[in-house]
Amino acid sequence: MSQFNEVSVVKKANVYFDGKCVSHTVIFADGTRKTLGVIFPSSLTFNVGAPEVMEITGGSCRVRLAGASEWTTYAAGQSFSVPGDSSFDIEVTEMVDYVCHYG
Amino acid sequence: MSQFNEVSVVKKANVYFDGKCVSHTVIFADGTRKTLGVIFPSSLTFNVGAPEVMEITGGSCRVRLAGASEWTTYAAGQSFSVPGDSSFDIEVTEMVDYVCHYG
Repeated sequence: MSQFNEVSVVKKANVYFDGKCVSHTVIFADGTRKTLGVIFPSSLTFNVGAPEVMEITGGSCRVRLAGASEWTTYAAGQSFSVPGDSSFDIEVTEMVDYVCHYG
Repeated sequence: MSQFNEVSVVKKANVYFDGKCVSHTVIFADGTRKTLGVIFPSSLTFNVGAPEVMEITGGSCRVRLAGASEWTTYAAGQSFSVPGDSSFDIEVTEMVDYVCHYG
């Protein structure tokens, strides 16, 4: 599915890391939220509050969860889960499109 | 209104000018589309097919429509109209959030 239907979308973008990450927030009928975004080629560390699932919908990246020693590569169609109150390192080699699912 | 309700949103972003402009497409129940985006500080020329209205929802920019000699400054809450099959120059001094209305 290339789009979300019957949702609300917040007009203003979320911008992180000097524009290396840009997302828009989508709100579903049940009140849950997701963010749709891009990450430009870079090496970043994201701090995570609530647990989340990062679904990669385009591009490619390597990810290392907090406490892990190994990097794992993810491309379009793949996802990874991030525990709450943690972080992950990400190296984006080809601009990533993602959907971030919370909770 | 800080959000659009009862819409569809396309998951993948539209990225222009090496990431200086990032938007997501929103589709309304009547089939019309708008894009929600950001433009990072830069000097760019946008080519326009269909007529559009650029509504600035955050930040500040100067704009010169094709054929005009004067620049006009726009900030949050202001809009400008662009005729079809034309272009405009934009100088963004403070990251702009925008909604682009077509037709």
